[in-house]
Amino acid sequence: MTTGVRRRMGVEERREQLIAVALELFSHRSPDEVSIDEIAGAAGISRPLVYHYFPGKRSLYEAALRKAAVDLAARFEEPREGPLGPRLLRVMGRFFDFVDQHGPGFSALMRGGPAVGSSTTNALIDSVRQAAYEQILAHIGITAPSARLELVVRSWVSLAESTALLWLDGRRVPRAELELQLVHDFVALTAVSAAYDEEIAAVLRAVLATEPSDGHFADLVGRLVALAPLPQSHA
Amino acid sequence: MTTGVRRRMGVEERREQLIAVALELFSHRSPDEVSIDEIAGAAGISRPLVYHYFPGKRSLYEAALRKAAVDLAARFEEPREGPLGPRLLRVMGRFFDFVDQHGPGFSALMRGGPAVGSSTTNALIDSVRQAAYEQILAHIGITAPSARLELVVRSWVSLAESTALLWLDGRRVPRAELELQLVHDFVALTAVSAAYDEEIAAVLRAVLATEPSDGHFADLVGRLVALAPLPQSHA
Repeated sequence: MTTGVRRRMGVEERREQLIAVALELFSHRSPDEVSIDEIAGAAGISRPLVYHYFPGKRSLYEAALRKAAVDLAARFEEPREGPLGPRLLRVMGRFFDFVDQHGPGFSALMRGGPAVGSSTTNALIDSVRQAAYEQILAHIGITAPSARLELVVRSWVSLAESTALLWLDGRRVPRAELELQLVHDFVALTAVSAAYDEEIAAVLRAVLATEPSDGHFADLVGRLVALAPLPQSHA
Repeated sequence: MTTGVRRRMGVEERREQLIAVALELFSHRSPDEVSIDEIAGAAGISRPLVYHYFPGKRSLYEAALRKAAVDLAARFEEPREGPLGPRLLRVMGRFFDFVDQHGPGFSALMRGGPAVGSSTTNALIDSVRQAAYEQILAHIGITAPSARLELVVRSWVSLAESTALLWLDGRRVPRAELELQLVHDFVALTAVSAAYDEEIAAVLRAVLATEPSDGHFADLVGRLVALAPLPQSHA
């Protein structure tokens, strides 16, 4: 019989189990609200045994976060093929899958707090941001970005985070809309900078050149043109 | 003689002085790196006397943050007169003044960490975000925003934060450019949502209708049109 409770696990297997149990609990409640007792109970082992595998609550939290960070960073990986819009849309879909699945844990982590705010967790969050940033740079084919382009890409990564956090607070907008909106936001923020920076303008032209005429970007531009009123016409 | 060291101060005056000294120190180094000894030294009083006014380091930090939060929130206040672009630009100017002045303290606070991450500090940060959000809503003349509009405005507030944080890390882009960029970003993010939401489209039209034909928005649109290549033309 495999009750899961009595079967003997190796050290690594047990650690993995505890991390999985913790992440599952954090998907429903903030890490601050989840005790070691609960994690022990859900894993079917005693509290002291948890401490055998993880010296303290923080150590288990950080191990869980490390696993989640690797998972999240991997979701930004996407083959560099085809138009950028659909690529980014697939990335955003996987990003929101993650946010959806890890809701309370994601919120608690990004907002900081007693159990989750530490230099280790901040470094892990930064590692995910950096991975996302590097993936986006790779997609637009840039290896040595200017300070302005770096800022555009990093600020968009941050916008994706904050949009996801705002979405989690009530989920009042369908997530599919926000996934597409963030793809459009990327082009919009790039366009704003492109208007004043030739390097970024070249990036934008290259991105748009790969887009199909019936794609999302064309749809956006068409709608914007239909919205129309350029400021001049109202002066 | 007013050496500042020996003059007797009232309780409130002394508390204000310690807060001012702390904020001054936090403008050069992260709160994590500033000790009560240093604050006492800079204020010209003994360490035990600091504890007479503030029961602990965190209490002093939080009082300093509370003062900074009130200051920062006030910078989003702007008369509701004239076109929106110049109003937002003035707000962004004051916001970057604050960020410029409180650099390390602002970074440490927004990034969380041992000395600065707590439910109290998170609540203070949220109060500033809320104040900024409400100010922007008032500027666009909306009192009961839809979930989508709320998300656009809040995500822009968050973009302003992250852009400022990225700027602080090296200050490699002139801040005046970023102030204008954030004003443009506001319109760009609103436009992306307006393309798929009639309420937001109405907000955008109303905003653009107040803009002068030689204003920043017209300049942006003109440049974007000159950048030109609509996706269709490349299909």
